[in-house]
Amino acid sequence: MSQFTNVAITKEANIYFDGNVTSRSVHFADGTKKTLGIMLPGDYEFNTGAKELMEILSGDLEIQLVGEEWRKISAGESFEVPANSSFKLKIYKITDYCCSFLG
Amino acid sequence: MSQFTNVAITKEANIYFDGNVTSRSVHFADGTKKTLGIMLPGDYEFNTGAKELMEILSGDLEIQLVGEEWRKISAGESFEVPANSSFKLKIYKITDYCCSFLG
Repeated sequence: MSQFTNVAITKEANIYFDGNVTSRSVHFADGTKKTLGIMLPGDYEFNTGAKELMEILSGDLEIQLVGEEWRKISAGESFEVPANSSFKLKIYKITDYCCSFLG
Repeated sequence: MSQFTNVAITKEANIYFDGNVTSRSVHFADGTKKTLGIMLPGDYEFNTGAKELMEILSGDLEIQLVGEEWRKISAGESFEVPANSSFKLKIYKITDYCCSFLG
């Protein structure tokens, strides 16, 4: 188990898709933010503001970025999503993730 | 939105009941721990080690402590569970909670 230390965490959850996707926001001393989240099996689409780095801690899923093919992502793998874009997800098994918002 | 500041958070989620209950562990400088979690609708039973203070941030549920009647808990309310005991939950609406482990 790894930890983020010296951070602030927002108490209230972020809740999407009737609770099938939820996350907590973690705030770092340098002003950056990450979310730690859970996605239950299902199909989802998210929009990005800032560029995002999605790190899959556990789970089984496929993702599709705009203009790209679907591709499989496994635990321990990451993918980036451009700013002001969107991405689609097919979650096959409960997925634990860390999303970093890149400046 | 309120925050816990100057804390550490375990990156990996705690996952129970096939992901219908998930939480993240938050570690405080004084050595105490809380979990921030989500419970989806369903019936659950949990055992306690340490005494727990369960604060309901949002949601709609009923709880039953050992030897007590079922009672309704609403957002903003809390309940305590004795150490080395158990409690049952009927979650009617997605529930966001903060659980403090009391020494």
